[in-house]
Amino acid sequence: MKTGNLRINRDRLMNTLRDFAKIGETKNKGVTRLALSKEDIQARTYFKDQCEALGLTVQWDDLGNMYALLSGKNPDQPPIYMGSHLDTVKKGGRFDGVLGVAAGLEVIRVILDQGVELNRPVGIINFTNEEGARFEPSMMASGIVAGKFDVSTMTKKIDQSGVTFGDALELSGFKGSRAHRLNQAAAFLELHIEQGPILEQLQLDIGVVECVVGMCCYEIEITGQSNHAGTTPQSLRKDALTAANYCMNILHDRLAQLDSDLVYTIGRFSVSPNIHTVIPNKVVFSIEARHKDEAVVKQVETILTDITNESPLPSKATKLWGRHTVWFDEEIVEQVEESTKALHYSYKRMVSGAGHDAQFIAGIIPTAMIFVPSADGISHAENEYTSWEACANGASVLLETIYKLTNKL
Amino acid sequence: MKTGNLRINRDRLMNTLRDFAKIGETKNKGVTRLALSKEDIQARTYFKDQCEALGLTVQWDDLGNMYALLSGKNPDQPPIYMGSHLDTVKKGGRFDGVLGVAAGLEVIRVILDQGVELNRPVGIINFTNEEGARFEPSMMASGIVAGKFDVSTMTKKIDQSGVTFGDALELSGFKGSRAHRLNQAAAFLELHIEQGPILEQLQLDIGVVECVVGMCCYEIEITGQSNHAGTTPQSLRKDALTAANYCMNILHDRLAQLDSDLVYTIGRFSVSPNIHTVIPNKVVFSIEARHKDEAVVKQVETILTDITNESPLPSKATKLWGRHTVWFDEEIVEQVEESTKALHYSYKRMVSGAGHDAQFIAGIIPTAMIFVPSADGISHAENEYTSWEACANGASVLLETIYKLTNKL
Repeated sequence: MKTGNLRINRDRLMNTLRDFAKIGETKNKGVTRLALSKEDIQARTYFKDQCEALGLTVQWDDLGNMYALLSGKNPDQPPIYMGSHLDTVKKGGRFDGVLGVAAGLEVIRVILDQGVELNRPVGIINFTNEEGARFEPSMMASGIVAGKFDVSTMTKKIDQSGVTFGDALELSGFKGSRAHRLNQAAAFLELHIEQGPILEQLQLDIGVVECVVGMCCYEIEITGQSNHAGTTPQSLRKDALTAANYCMNILHDRLAQLDSDLVYTIGRFSVSPNIHTVIPNKVVFSIEARHKDEAVVKQVETILTDITNESPLPSKATKLWGRHTVWFDEEIVEQVEESTKALHYSYKRMVSGAGHDAQFIAGIIPTAMIFVPSADGISHAENEYTSWEACANGASVLLETIYKLTNKL
Repeated sequence: MKTGNLRINRDRLMNTLRDFAKIGETKNKGVTRLALSKEDIQARTYFKDQCEALGLTVQWDDLGNMYALLSGKNPDQPPIYMGSHLDTVKKGGRFDGVLGVAAGLEVIRVILDQGVELNRPVGIINFTNEEGARFEPSMMASGIVAGKFDVSTMTKKIDQSGVTFGDALELSGFKGSRAHRLNQAAAFLELHIEQGPILEQLQLDIGVVECVVGMCCYEIEITGQSNHAGTTPQSLRKDALTAANYCMNILHDRLAQLDSDLVYTIGRFSVSPNIHTVIPNKVVFSIEARHKDEAVVKQVETILTDITNESPLPSKATKLWGRHTVWFDEEIVEQVEESTKALHYSYKRMVSGAGHDAQFIAGIIPTAMIFVPSADGISHAENEYTSWEACANGASVLLETIYKLTNKL
């Protein structure tokens, strides 16, 4: 059977996304669906009902990760999974996460509509608490499944009102058996919005994602001395903010020279005592940098630790965390690229600067990701936007890739 | 009678300061004596008792300002007042404010001990709520007396627990008659710690204060766009913090060129959303500058408003407030200088960068100030320190000046 006969139903996909967007909808047409909240449970139930209506088997593991499976004619073969997550940040958008789940539903619907008989089971996964917005860290449940996080530590994590992840799971009705955890599959594919501006800027349809970039995150602390703003001559000041300004100039100069693909951000910045009439005695700021080439990240780390020698006031640089670049499975990535070409979409091989469940799952299952454009690169905001057409393009690549892989793997 | 016979009793002054320091003493030997608090009332009562034991008449006005008067042989002549304030900031020091009141007591004690008959009454004032630490703004009661603030607005000011200044006054037992307000006096002299490092750096005993410098305070707001720190290439960012850094560089360069006596401070600095993985979309910072020459302050204002044209992102500069330079009465300042010379103290004519009750009182009464050194320029802190010797030096200049002025004015 030619895949040319398999077509995503754009309007059906749109309606599914719209149905999800109603669950936790905010005043400004965004979505608040924190992990295991009432809204998340409603979205899970909707997903389960849709899957069961299609005849899929729906199970969940001890972390609430949901697995909906179409067994097909060879139920004993390792399945191919599609998926992403249904939770959002507070006042998030209508596409981040849910697109990968809704597109999975659409792919299964096309397969069933067309009576395609696949050589192996195909399924959809909804990972619990990808955002980490209610319970830190992000990608919590995929991280546990992949052995990156310890389950007993994670179940004790609390939200702002003191509820533990473990208790929220119990209460949700979606705590299942550990035996259901993902442990064997032929492939995992995550379709996701880019959350960046590159595809839109280059007017491309699809991002063929090769890796999730490595990163480091440091905290720089600069200590000065507080004194009265009116009575201390400039020459006798130990102004921590002026020193921070000097250090930031050096950092910007040096980091900008490293590599044009490097991204780095000073996101958190606090000044003490933060009173207009008092010279700042302390500045603490975070700086994180991401690049696929770990040698570049190493160079960044050297620049960040060296800054303490050049700061005009006592400073320290503390590494908060880092992660290695996660390269996706080349065979799966190539199939995504071939499928994209076969469907005549414009595309680019690219990196993911953001973290995704796929980066952890890549440690245990051959994995790849597909990106579609984000308007203005905006995500985690109510005005996050990807056109229905772009969503359908991504789902089409997902469908084509799944179809090819079921035969190939 | 030669003033050479009048000598400050250093130990008695020290003991008075120590007695005051016990009222509201903190663990680290600082003082917390917020305006009209239990501790402030205790300090006021101690002051009243000491004054009455000396035979002074003690009254207070409708704002709680206390006036202790030694009428002498010409009770109808306009008096000369010394004074400052007994309130402190939270975790403040043992010298700021109280020195001017305790030195006033010491001056009166010397006069009485020596049986000096002055040509006019001499008194001590304790101004209410100079610090503004409990009820904003600072110098509240002297400001009302001088017609700078509206009494009905000020009495409605609330502290952190919602108590109004008016209610705190009523409860304190120190709300007196409006008729007692300072309205006619020959001079007012405020001895105060410098709260800056200049006298110590130059190893000088006394600061002969010519003025309280003029100032302006602006808020600069820079608006960018938040995006994901991992997915947005540097070239496509609208990072408000990077833009703020650029603006601060320009400001530092230009302000540093204006005049070596100019002081300027970026004290309050806030970054939004202040999350390490999100590009900052807003930075708001305060910048204030002080100089005795108002033309210099005007130049600062031009630099601050011009920065909005050079900021790489949309910016605005809002003037939060400003004040004119307050020049003290030249005749009184000259007498302070002459007295300092007569006592063979090293000194410098200087400005006050900080605000003081004297700056408001200067609007209605011929006024001047005397500074003594602050160790490391530190004030408003538990480790604020001025040696007993330096305190006595300041009191000696105060005594000599008062004595001369009573004959002269």
